[in-house]
Amino acid sequence: MQKPMLGHLDPDMHDMLLEVTALLRTAYQASGGVVLPLQATGTSGMETGLANLLEPGDVAIVGACGFFGRRIVEIAKRHGAEVVEVGADWGEHVSNESILRALDEHPEARLVAVVHAETSTGVEHPLAELGAALRDRDVLLLADCVTSLGGVPLDFDGWGLDYAYSCTQKCLGAPPGMSPIALSERAMERIRSRTTPVPYSFDVLLLERYWEQRPAVYHHTAPILHIYALYESLRGLVNEGLEARWKRHSEAGSFLQAEIRDRGLDLLADPDFQLAPLTAVRVPEGVDGKQVQMRMLREHGIEIGGGLGPDAPAMWRIGLMGHNANLDVARTVLTALDAVLAGERVSQAV
Amino acid sequence: MQKPMLGHLDPDMHDMLLEVTALLRTAYQASGGVVLPLQATGTSGMETGLANLLEPGDVAIVGACGFFGRRIVEIAKRHGAEVVEVGADWGEHVSNESILRALDEHPEARLVAVVHAETSTGVEHPLAELGAALRDRDVLLLADCVTSLGGVPLDFDGWGLDYAYSCTQKCLGAPPGMSPIALSERAMERIRSRTTPVPYSFDVLLLERYWEQRPAVYHHTAPILHIYALYESLRGLVNEGLEARWKRHSEAGSFLQAEIRDRGLDLLADPDFQLAPLTAVRVPEGVDGKQVQMRMLREHGIEIGGGLGPDAPAMWRIGLMGHNANLDVARTVLTALDAVLAGERVSQAV
Repeated sequence: MQKPMLGHLDPDMHDMLLEVTALLRTAYQASGGVVLPLQATGTSGMETGLANLLEPGDVAIVGACGFFGRRIVEIAKRHGAEVVEVGADWGEHVSNESILRALDEHPEARLVAVVHAETSTGVEHPLAELGAALRDRDVLLLADCVTSLGGVPLDFDGWGLDYAYSCTQKCLGAPPGMSPIALSERAMERIRSRTTPVPYSFDVLLLERYWEQRPAVYHHTAPILHIYALYESLRGLVNEGLEARWKRHSEAGSFLQAEIRDRGLDLLADPDFQLAPLTAVRVPEGVDGKQVQMRMLREHGIEIGGGLGPDAPAMWRIGLMGHNANLDVARTVLTALDAVLAGERVSQAV
Repeated sequence: MQKPMLGHLDPDMHDMLLEVTALLRTAYQASGGVVLPLQATGTSGMETGLANLLEPGDVAIVGACGFFGRRIVEIAKRHGAEVVEVGADWGEHVSNESILRALDEHPEARLVAVVHAETSTGVEHPLAELGAALRDRDVLLLADCVTSLGGVPLDFDGWGLDYAYSCTQKCLGAPPGMSPIALSERAMERIRSRTTPVPYSFDVLLLERYWEQRPAVYHHTAPILHIYALYESLRGLVNEGLEARWKRHSEAGSFLQAEIRDRGLDLLADPDFQLAPLTAVRVPEGVDGKQVQMRMLREHGIEIGGGLGPDAPAMWRIGLMGHNANLDVARTVLTALDAVLAGERVSQAV
């Protein structure tokens, strides 16, 4: 991000946009439709999908087992959809059987939405299986891939996804600032046949003209420095290779999770659906979780998350993503956590 | 932007957010309501205002004399508004009299929207006078301040504005990536009394809780590096002083415009409403405008704009904004333009 800025209408910049979208296609394993990074938050990536794929009155089936699944529900409603929410408790996953049952009860549904990697709980959805089960159904499949793209296996084409969104600052390892999205050709057809308008900022048909058509049609001034950073992070991903990168995230996460269990601490997620890059740890009885977070930050320079939303159980959320997905970082986190927890127990004893 | 990143939920980061909003209030001269930078394009700043202040069926009066005024019309329609468009030709301004006449014909209008600084033509709207004329009317006033904030006099409170939006990469001199917006208390009341939902990404009531309430309520992951850059650019603005900064932009723009007229070239904007930071020059007969732009870029490293939109007259748009608003940069641009135009004339003669 320290390179001189190119103008957003400079042809050299437009060449770089094409390279970025090509690299993103590799990361998503998405060959058709449209793939591009929104200059927006992950939440706007979510909203762009829902705003484009749903029209007022459409039925959407949403699997929600945490903060971000519930956000899908809320945003779909704001855009006029009738939402059938299929829920699960904190730490559990939404079973594909329950989603398919809801679809049988609502065959008119136009969209099924799930969270591939629930950042608020560390639960991974069995997305490949859901895609396979929906293959012959006339319904679109949307997935929140914020904490999965570049960190765990994800095959947009192979799994039959129609819309996915992510963030640059998770497993891609770039700074926060953009939301890479992918749409299938089927999703684009649905969008082209809409009868109601979408908000301008979310209009994929317009964005496509800037990112993929040449000469590029002006839509907005692109965030040049974030595009440089994303370009470099995607080149790193492609050079490392998807399989190697997934393996690195898996090994780091599994190691951290085993070590935490060995310390007698409980993980929030059902072990059969534990996500590698994000580990949610239940705060033990009698420990002040927020105080531990603050001491990790102030004394060790390590930021760990807490529960998201007012009804989340007390937890710490530890991300090992992008460059940080390795055993050394996992050990550093564990050493710091041990020191802070020992201090907390001493201060309680006093 | 080269400082280490703070986490977006780090309390130190939250302190910086408050400093940024305080500095933005100084830049806008906006003391009430809500002021914050969206992580979004200027277009999304425009859309956030229209999406929050208009409900389906509301009447909006929009002054449109260029590309961005027309974009207001389009976005307001997408959000269900009935738009009364008050137009003017390229290079002309929309007179306040014609806007007030439209308001007399549509007293039910809930919003008047104009472009303070039309980036596509270099025309400045007499916004202070419009604000004064609307002072006792029950209608909100929205202004596009993309190329005016930090570059020309702008007094949000004093002029009675209800919503304004800008961009970080224009006269503020930071990289593209954020859109600072300001809302009056009257605008916030209107928003709180809405009966229809707004898209989640544009929901000012939620954004306010992240930027201005403490403890901060999570809305999205903030673009840390862009916030650093905006913070520094705003500190530069406050240290320089608003008056001094406006004077610098005015002197640089006036000098450039006089020199261009001295060369026998025509400016697009009505001289009585010429904006200082953006100078639109008509491409002379027989000169290939796009070729001149490309040679300015390739041979002199200077990017100048062309016309925006399919029906724009042939023009070059030269911005002297932020750090570039000074006589030295103006002279550098003129020297390059002279060299390129001389070359173009020679090649035509051959």
